Amino acid sequence: MLADLGNVLRQIEPLAPEWIRRAETHQASLTKPLGSLGRLEELANRVVAIQRSLTPTVDRARIVVFAADHGVTAEGVAPYPSAVTGQMVANFLAGGAGVNALARVAGAEVHVVDIGVASDLGHVTGVHQRRVAPGTKNMAREPAMTHEQADAAIAAGFEMGRDAIASGVDMIGLGEMGIGNSTAASAVTAALTGLPVMSVTGRGTGADDAMLAHKISVIENALRRHRPDPADAFDVLVKVGGFELAGLAGVVLAAAAGRKVVVTDGFIATAAAALAVRMCPPAGAYLFAAHRSPEPGHTALLTMIGHEPLLDLGMRLGEGTGAALAFMLIRAAVAAFTEMATFTSAGVSNRANASDVVV
Amino acid sequence: MLADLGNVLRQIEPLAPEWIRRAETHQASLTKPLGSLGRLEELANRVVAIQRSLTPTVDRARIVVFAADHGVTAEGVAPYPSAVTGQMVANFLAGGAGVNALARVAGAEVHVVDIGVASDLGHVTGVHQRRVAPGTKNMAREPAMTHEQADAAIAAGFEMGRDAIASGVDMIGLGEMGIGNSTAASAVTAALTGLPVMSVTGRGTGADDAMLAHKISVIENALRRHRPDPADAFDVLVKVGGFELAGLAGVVLAAAAGRKVVVTDGFIATAAAALAVRMCPPAGAYLFAAHRSPEPGHTALLTMIGHEPLLDLGMRLGEGTGAALAFMLIRAAVAAFTEMATFTSAGVSNRANASDVVV
Repeated sequence: MLADLGNVLRQIEPLAPEWIRRAETHQASLTKPLGSLGRLEELANRVVAIQRSLTPTVDRARIVVFAADHGVTAEGVAPYPSAVTGQMVANFLAGGAGVNALARVAGAEVHVVDIGVASDLGHVTGVHQRRVAPGTKNMAREPAMTHEQADAAIAAGFEMGRDAIASGVDMIGLGEMGIGNSTAASAVTAALTGLPVMSVTGRGTGADDAMLAHKISVIENALRRHRPDPADAFDVLVKVGGFELAGLAGVVLAAAAGRKVVVTDGFIATAAAALAVRMCPPAGAYLFAAHRSPEPGHTALLTMIGHEPLLDLGMRLGEGTGAALAFMLIRAAVAAFTEMATFTSAGVSNRANASDVVV
Repeated sequence: MLADLGNVLRQIEPLAPEWIRRAETHQASLTKPLGSLGRLEELANRVVAIQRSLTPTVDRARIVVFAADHGVTAEGVAPYPSAVTGQMVANFLAGGAGVNALARVAGAEVHVVDIGVASDLGHVTGVHQRRVAPGTKNMAREPAMTHEQADAAIAAGFEMGRDAIASGVDMIGLGEMGIGNSTAASAVTAALTGLPVMSVTGRGTGADDAMLAHKISVIENALRRHRPDPADAFDVLVKVGGFELAGLAGVVLAAAAGRKVVVTDGFIATAAAALAVRMCPPAGAYLFAAHRSPEPGHTALLTMIGHEPLLDLGMRLGEGTGAALAFMLIRAAVAAFTEMATFTSAGVSNRANASDVVV
């Protein structure tokens, strides 16, 4: 892995329990029964600890969508052609995709990165051009990428994250698009968790029974051929990963290094987050799990990174659509924390001092 | 019940399956695998059917918070004194409560109604003054309210809902505040569902074990004394309900009559929604369940009204805080429906016509 990235990773710190305690003390002073905002309270407390501030800001949010193609689509593992990846990049830039609509509602920016699309995107303006290669190699036959390509893709993601932070972004969401990438994500999940491929592989964009069985067999064969080391996320990424997974892992590391909230999305984005956490376990404290996808591998990844998702709405589109929704919940949590009156300031009787307060 | 309200209820119509089908057809044309936005698709489809429009609007949202006191607090069923109800009304109007913070994030208005607060609110400006009485009677000794009071409280809620619609509000959220109202809501839930009181009664704002056991016993005795008719929601309301429950039920009926989205909140608001649905079953189609509270009776009510909640975040504050979050999810669902490109307009290959599209 990149030598200078290694230095950055060593600087990523766990959250200080002292800041969580300070946040909890403030929560107890607000005009609500303690704990009555449930997980919104935990969310706000963690944002406080991440930003080391009792007045954290989460106004500015950006979803970074990494698009890439996958050589393994040659095996017939996805019901849409690879051309759709490039077509959807154009759709993202034109503002017509699901993530665009949801990001507008959430007040979030959408940045799109070509980190490995196979199609010609010469006609598309506004894309961040960081193409490492026109798609990965076919993992069924050879490693998905070289070490140098993995380094370059992680670095591209790291730089996208660092640039977002330099621009004043408070929360970064993980988005992706890539026909075939649920195959890569399932392979990564099986490799990282040791779970059977069958239990972590789903229908992606809509594989039928025969295609799903074939997809499972392709992944099993790839893992048997390459034997990725579960303890070495970089090795897993090189052998059965994808460029968008690498880029997203880079974003997670940049966010953690820059002490910013980073929000996962569905199965693919969470596979990337899991790679980042295996590379650098303290980075996990900066992650927020947006939602639970029906993809069967997602729950295993959420368990691995130790986060309970905020939403469970049967969403399986990716693109950062779940992250967009989660931004709104995190903003609500922080608003309650920073804007609510205290029992004292509002003259509301708390249980402990019911007789003290006169209104 | 009010004679003229009865006429309104007969005008509340079930949703037309034809509009759901039209919405589904449009969903299938959008640039995403069909069904990949999960429950967001169902949400949007239902809004289409409610508004009878393929370009529904959900921009303007209002939470109506009904505040009331409960005579049953004389039995020692709540850990906070009744005075807190009036204090929190002042907090709502000053913008310092949880619902104010969350409504600001959600871009929603907050309207506060004194429908039965016991405290003097002479110093509070901006409250809608619809006080039926300074709190209900103690259900442990007598019916909570008279038939005339129930009529007046439902009518006050109906008028608040009607006024919101007349002002151009697209979505109405149900908020409440009232020390002791989880006791009334549990009594209503047990009466409507026939479930044992113990299984639908929780700690409310934070009762300890002894207070919870006492609360259960108070409710059991009240139900044994009054024997409310489960088929007659009005009878249940009169005997063991509350003024805020009546007001909220009135809002639900007004929203359904006016073909608007109406969003429940936690346990108390859902008890009111369940009363409205028992009074007028077609009104249930206009309801959206915001979240699942840890209050044990909430799930029984959600089952009764036939709605799966959107969120499950351990929230138990009430006030409309959950409704505020749900507004954002419904807006996201509608934005995806109305703003996403189609496969044809974006030049994206659909599975069914992959060979047709040239980019």
